[in-house]
Amino acid sequence: MTGKTCESVPTATPRFSQRRWFAADQAISFLMRQAVENRNVISLAAGLVDQETLPVDATRAAFERLFADPERARAALQYGTTAGAERLRVQVAQHLARLEGCSVAELHIDPDQILLTTGSQQTLALIADLLLDPGDICLVAAPTYFVFLGTLSGVGARAVPVPADEDGMRVDALEEELARLERAGELARVKLIYVVSYYENPTGVSLAAERRGELVDIARRWSKENRIFILEDTAYRELRYDGPDLPSVWRCDGSQETVILTHTFSKSFSPGLRVGFTVVPRELVRPLCDLKGNEDFGSANLNQHLLATILEEGLHEPHVQKLRRSYRLKRDAMLAAAEKHFGSLQEVSWYRPHGGLYVWMSLPPEIDTGFDGPLFQRATEEGVMYVPGELCFPAGDCEPERNHLRLSFGVQSVEGIAVGMARLARAVQAVLAR
Amino acid sequence: MTGKTCESVPTATPRFSQRRWFAADQAISFLMRQAVENRNVISLAAGLVDQETLPVDATRAAFERLFADPERARAALQYGTTAGAERLRVQVAQHLARLEGCSVAELHIDPDQILLTTGSQQTLALIADLLLDPGDICLVAAPTYFVFLGTLSGVGARAVPVPADEDGMRVDALEEELARLERAGELARVKLIYVVSYYENPTGVSLAAERRGELVDIARRWSKENRIFILEDTAYRELRYDGPDLPSVWRCDGSQETVILTHTFSKSFSPGLRVGFTVVPRELVRPLCDLKGNEDFGSANLNQHLLATILEEGLHEPHVQKLRRSYRLKRDAMLAAAEKHFGSLQEVSWYRPHGGLYVWMSLPPEIDTGFDGPLFQRATEEGVMYVPGELCFPAGDCEPERNHLRLSFGVQSVEGIAVGMARLARAVQAVLAR
Repeated sequence: MTGKTCESVPTATPRFSQRRWFAADQAISFLMRQAVENRNVISLAAGLVDQETLPVDATRAAFERLFADPERARAALQYGTTAGAERLRVQVAQHLARLEGCSVAELHIDPDQILLTTGSQQTLALIADLLLDPGDICLVAAPTYFVFLGTLSGVGARAVPVPADEDGMRVDALEEELARLERAGELARVKLIYVVSYYENPTGVSLAAERRGELVDIARRWSKENRIFILEDTAYRELRYDGPDLPSVWRCDGSQETVILTHTFSKSFSPGLRVGFTVVPRELVRPLCDLKGNEDFGSANLNQHLLATILEEGLHEPHVQKLRRSYRLKRDAMLAAAEKHFGSLQEVSWYRPHGGLYVWMSLPPEIDTGFDGPLFQRATEEGVMYVPGELCFPAGDCEPERNHLRLSFGVQSVEGIAVGMARLARAVQAVLAR
Repeated sequence: MTGKTCESVPTATPRFSQRRWFAADQAISFLMRQAVENRNVISLAAGLVDQETLPVDATRAAFERLFADPERARAALQYGTTAGAERLRVQVAQHLARLEGCSVAELHIDPDQILLTTGSQQTLALIADLLLDPGDICLVAAPTYFVFLGTLSGVGARAVPVPADEDGMRVDALEEELARLERAGELARVKLIYVVSYYENPTGVSLAAERRGELVDIARRWSKENRIFILEDTAYRELRYDGPDLPSVWRCDGSQETVILTHTFSKSFSPGLRVGFTVVPRELVRPLCDLKGNEDFGSANLNQHLLATILEEGLHEPHVQKLRRSYRLKRDAMLAAAEKHFGSLQEVSWYRPHGGLYVWMSLPPEIDTGFDGPLFQRATEEGVMYVPGELCFPAGDCEPERNHLRLSFGVQSVEGIAVGMARLARAVQAVLAR
């Protein structure tokens, strides 16, 4: 050991920033520990993508192609820019145009409006950072993506719930909530509406076509004291198995002043690449780059070049098609198992998702599905794990609903899903029988 | 265009968070624009690594090795964890032990204390976020790494300068500054001391051996009101060309309560992989993971697996040796050119760095090297660019020194350095002659 230090002097305890205390433990950590400690358990909780379908061959092909040109390889191994590699931003614009069913020109965006991030989570965190001071308000569907609830808490913001149904966030209820907030003198605190517009995590529902334009209208009309932005999270968009192919909420925002679109290649290709992108109103480009510059001055450049090559070489779309076939079978397996085991149970219901990775199941109101409730314990004994629905409701004035489960069909095989659902049914029946 | 929205309704202007206003434009953006707009200019400004030495072959070899095993490839393409891939953390511990000249056991760390980040910049930003509320104080050498000054501003913290000499931050001056802050009733605001301990950006100086233990002692002794941490940035550590091979400040902290070590593979291998790591006191593991969980819930997993393979296969060390040879020649070329063109000039001096990528040059006090001063303009006309030294001094009570230049020998060839330095000399002589 080098250097002698005065270790006899006691050192004071650390004093953390306010931010540290905002950043509560994400419930996901508990679930991950549970999964590690109970390896024989079938997890219908994990939101990972299917390990077996990860694109080993496509990634290898793209890597070989990229590294066949030493100049291009070196460019990928060098620092990139804060906003991200130009090559990929060009591809992203084309990709987005394909998804929207229009030409790149019809998107009416500058390449500068596209920012590349470390997954779409970084966009969610940057937007929260950019717009929300402690006490500010983001309106969310109830239930919604629970990781984003943690992100909102992490900047000290308030998530205010808006009731949702099988067509997504209820726009009439959104308007009522805005009116209530205005009466309470809090409209100036409302900065953001968060919406997972395709196959929402956790419910699997999509925002209905007619609600999309209305949502933009409402945000504009209620931007009385300051701009209310919509953060549209389209993470699951490409995992569509049936049902309508909807344009985004962003596409309904003709003036491009209101909607921030975020998307990721984590679900449609590989989460290990950790590449997401966002398309933002022009006024947000510079502020977001300033924030991201401080955070990391650019996400991994190699991954951006790799993904640019994947898109250029047409390696992405065939993979998505393969994923759709594979996940569709799994979704059908889960729905069939739900019908088989729960179809005859009173007061048990679930949505039939057209895409995504989740089935949202509701039990009789008296059944508490939480970590400390009887069902989670019993399910663990039976060897199956799920995400308690209460995590997906914002903490706050109203009590979260405690009788739901988020079931994922992403990770398990068709057989695993069948076994897991049977185990879950035994646990539910045991608890119902008490 | 789908959806009709009420675009006739005017929308209010955005109201950003306090954070947005803290995040000022980084000066680096201006430099990058200048570089793009003046492509015939020889940049002695850019802090990039040498494009020609980027490890194309080593990266390809590691990729092929990793992807030869489909299980491992799939693991790399899946989500990772917030703290980072276990495989790489094991390798990082061994790498750190090699750098410190001891065994892994002698490091006395748990693998949990190692966190993998998106470059070391993410660590700098996370630590600022974790410890510093608006108005809190971080002590820094003057001059210091200018990007970190932006990061401190980004959380509303104050950077308080401590004079430095050719042995790095002056520990006597540090102690005086702490005493002054205590008298001013501000000791409780001091949370952090930032030190670039090897070949500091911008000066190229290293913290002298005897100052390393003293620095830890001072931080402990002045941790009266709350813990004062040391953030030790070792980004350039492996780029050593001659001079002593010093243990880290972290290694002088026997109780591991004070020093946060950060390192990156950006300088020693490839910035495009964007993999950095930090070793933190045990009490900081959980708070940092909570913050990072909100920010991105993990940096790119593929890159971590790739780098783990690079280290396992012994591909890293030969590359570093090659870099050392290459950069040493460039440093010598820059120092020779400095001697040739500036040796006879009164009041022009520079440090002779033992490593890193920079030479710090001081001109007569009356010469303003800033973007708006006469030299920068004249240098641009001559076709050479540098980083004005004033950027590396914290804004605050005292005036920054305006007569220094940061010159980088990283990007240019030996020939480019010679030409660039000759151009710079013409610009300096022209301004001196006025």
